[in-house]
Amino acid sequence: MVDWRDYLEKNQPRFLGELIEFLRIPSISALPEHAEDVSHAADWLARRLAEAGVENAQVLATGGHPVVHGDWLHAPNKPTVLIYGHFDVQPVDPLGEWERPPFEPEVQDGRIYARGASDNKGNLMVPVLAVEALLRAEGSLPVNVKFFFEGQEEIGSPQLPAFIEQHRDLLACDMVLNADVSQWGENQPALLVGLRGACSMQIDVRGPNSDLHSGVYGGAVRNPVQALVEILASMLSPEGRITVEGFYDDVQPLSEEERAQIAAVPLDEAKYKRDLGVDALHGEPGYTTLERTWARPTLDVNGIWGGFQGEGAKTVIPREAHCKFSCRLVPYQDPDKIVRLLTDHVRRHTPTGVRVDVQQLSVCARPYLIPADHWGNQVAGAVLEELYGVRPLQIRMGGSVPICGLFQDVLGVYTIGFGFALEDERIHAPNEFYRVSSFRRGQLAYGMMLKRLAEAR
Amino acid sequence: MVDWRDYLEKNQPRFLGELIEFLRIPSISALPEHAEDVSHAADWLARRLAEAGVENAQVLATGGHPVVHGDWLHAPNKPTVLIYGHFDVQPVDPLGEWERPPFEPEVQDGRIYARGASDNKGNLMVPVLAVEALLRAEGSLPVNVKFFFEGQEEIGSPQLPAFIEQHRDLLACDMVLNADVSQWGENQPALLVGLRGACSMQIDVRGPNSDLHSGVYGGAVRNPVQALVEILASMLSPEGRITVEGFYDDVQPLSEEERAQIAAVPLDEAKYKRDLGVDALHGEPGYTTLERTWARPTLDVNGIWGGFQGEGAKTVIPREAHCKFSCRLVPYQDPDKIVRLLTDHVRRHTPTGVRVDVQQLSVCARPYLIPADHWGNQVAGAVLEELYGVRPLQIRMGGSVPICGLFQDVLGVYTIGFGFALEDERIHAPNEFYRVSSFRRGQLAYGMMLKRLAEAR
Repeated sequence: MVDWRDYLEKNQPRFLGELIEFLRIPSISALPEHAEDVSHAADWLARRLAEAGVENAQVLATGGHPVVHGDWLHAPNKPTVLIYGHFDVQPVDPLGEWERPPFEPEVQDGRIYARGASDNKGNLMVPVLAVEALLRAEGSLPVNVKFFFEGQEEIGSPQLPAFIEQHRDLLACDMVLNADVSQWGENQPALLVGLRGACSMQIDVRGPNSDLHSGVYGGAVRNPVQALVEILASMLSPEGRITVEGFYDDVQPLSEEERAQIAAVPLDEAKYKRDLGVDALHGEPGYTTLERTWARPTLDVNGIWGGFQGEGAKTVIPREAHCKFSCRLVPYQDPDKIVRLLTDHVRRHTPTGVRVDVQQLSVCARPYLIPADHWGNQVAGAVLEELYGVRPLQIRMGGSVPICGLFQDVLGVYTIGFGFALEDERIHAPNEFYRVSSFRRGQLAYGMMLKRLAEAR
Repeated sequence: MVDWRDYLEKNQPRFLGELIEFLRIPSISALPEHAEDVSHAADWLARRLAEAGVENAQVLATGGHPVVHGDWLHAPNKPTVLIYGHFDVQPVDPLGEWERPPFEPEVQDGRIYARGASDNKGNLMVPVLAVEALLRAEGSLPVNVKFFFEGQEEIGSPQLPAFIEQHRDLLACDMVLNADVSQWGENQPALLVGLRGACSMQIDVRGPNSDLHSGVYGGAVRNPVQALVEILASMLSPEGRITVEGFYDDVQPLSEEERAQIAAVPLDEAKYKRDLGVDALHGEPGYTTLERTWARPTLDVNGIWGGFQGEGAKTVIPREAHCKFSCRLVPYQDPDKIVRLLTDHVRRHTPTGVRVDVQQLSVCARPYLIPADHWGNQVAGAVLEELYGVRPLQIRMGGSVPICGLFQDVLGVYTIGFGFALEDERIHAPNEFYRVSSFRRGQLAYGMMLKRLAEAR
């Protein structure tokens, strides 16, 4: 019998080639013109699951972008693990800032550059390859495994709640392993104990029925851009505190224990600033950088536009102005309530002379916490410690994985973060990359994890 | 001998066809890719002047967009009048809001629709045609006439100060007639006694070296859009008062006489709001709408952009944000000093964690006042009263015609506003138009004006 680790070792070049093939598919879920590509990525992935020896590999319709499912359920009296990831990717703009075309993957200095390399196609492939190695080498898996990959994570998984409700039995499991998370560093593993929630919105300000000459009408009408500026300025203080009425009402103060847990995680702020190219960090007063990004809510404008953007000067009063913004939320903020508070705030701060519409966008997620001593975390911690040679940190993540809350609500199970991205990999930004070393180590980790889970119960 | 008025009457269809031909040339001075078109418009115009019987018609280089000059100087002991206009036009974006292509002129219901129809090609052609009629009908002009048409008005006439300095003799005159102004209404003429000045600037805010994931980094860095929002909010109060230190220092309070002069001009605010499609007017407290648009300085954002502008949600922290803005200035504000004050203000209000650049754009003009009883105004007033059957109002204009200040400084002469645009003609905006009736009445008015000027001196 071949050792499953040898199988992995021997097949790395092929696996990397397959990942590159997968990354060539521009499966951007946010853009309607890429809907076909998202389906194409689903088909590719279902076929790849079947090739790995996974049974019932199939693409399932959701009413929106599809999901991919497959399983291997021949380990009686052993736990059932649902492995989650997503095969859709973020848009690529600003395209001009990419050093290579985002869907022509290139491996350089141990890094695979492409949109989706880290978030999440590279990390998603890791458990598939581990399962293939175990099945080929041992003929069976130590636990029951279900795969559940979605194609709409980057747009907030609008059809997933209904889909999961309708497929409770298909997806029933003892725990979820989530491949869409990060480790702390190349040499420092981590257990994820919390995720922020999110909500996203758009504000549209409309003034006069046409762009106006700023000489003729300057002084007569409210400028829609200035109205938007005032609304945005009313939502966030220059110090970084959100000034929307009621916004912090459901936020629990951080306990001494939580602050100690976070403070135990090292952060080299000088390097952090250098990597980002900023000369100062900024955020809500009274909290450390990690507290602010992990355990405190935030509000960020994601985009703003209105009026003349061309070369030179055009002295108009724009007829309209727009922005998109999003919040990151922490326990026990409810995204629906926050959207209501934000909507009310914008309405209350709408000045005269303009009409303001405010709408919710698709990104929406409840915040998520998992006990650090959950048995899945204990097993994951042991695997990571053996593989990295150091104890994992207990970390939170500032980002949102909306599906964790869904799995908890509908399937009644916790989700263990078990992914191998790293935070410098420019996800959602130009020049995204993934480390070849993470790709490889992740496969070993998943193999060990499935074996240890079988032993633990 | 044909009467010059009959000549005009008979040739209206040809004149309208020629204007349409002129309007087809997309002479957008702000866009480098249209530089050839600006030159093409200059050539067209010089040829047309020659056809009208104007002598020495020529295109002159400026180092930027050219000017067109021509003259007829055979009226010894009579005044010399310099007729001014511009053949460049504004950009056309947002193109999607045009009901017809902006450079495919169409006449409908007595209106000529095209970019530049009102500002300024239609109005510029008016004196050319009047001069042609006088020359063809009478063989001579009652006064000496010089034409001086420029191709860079819409970008702030950057090369004109040096050009006028260098061509003092060529341009020497007793007064300027400026065809780039408006009448008060279709049935209400006006004498222009004041123009606002202007300056324009751009702010560029740069934060992290890449767009960032708002989950991972939200709470860690200053959002460049929010920084720009704070800077803009610091410059203008929600009530409409400019809050830049020193901005109002050189503004003279309006005298009782000036306020009375302005109050004598009727403004139907209900109709004004209806035409603009706004439910409320807005501006600096303590002033009427006409005072605010004519005689008080203003600050307007002309365009803003940064981050994600696509469909759906993309939860990034944008790496940068930008805006263009402009001020309208009143006597005795100096645009250079105002630019310095604005630059200092932006620097003082630059928050930590971002880099902010501020630069002056090309639009720059000194405010301008002319005595209401200047002899040119007296003649113009008599002509307008005869033609319209009502006394002209004494009005100001909120817009800027930078060249008025230049003529005053360099040639030592006042500029009489003598143009036939109307303020609802959507200049600088989509669906610009010009009235055929104004085109025709303007030609009569110019013929009468030249004759009366000869009689007055």
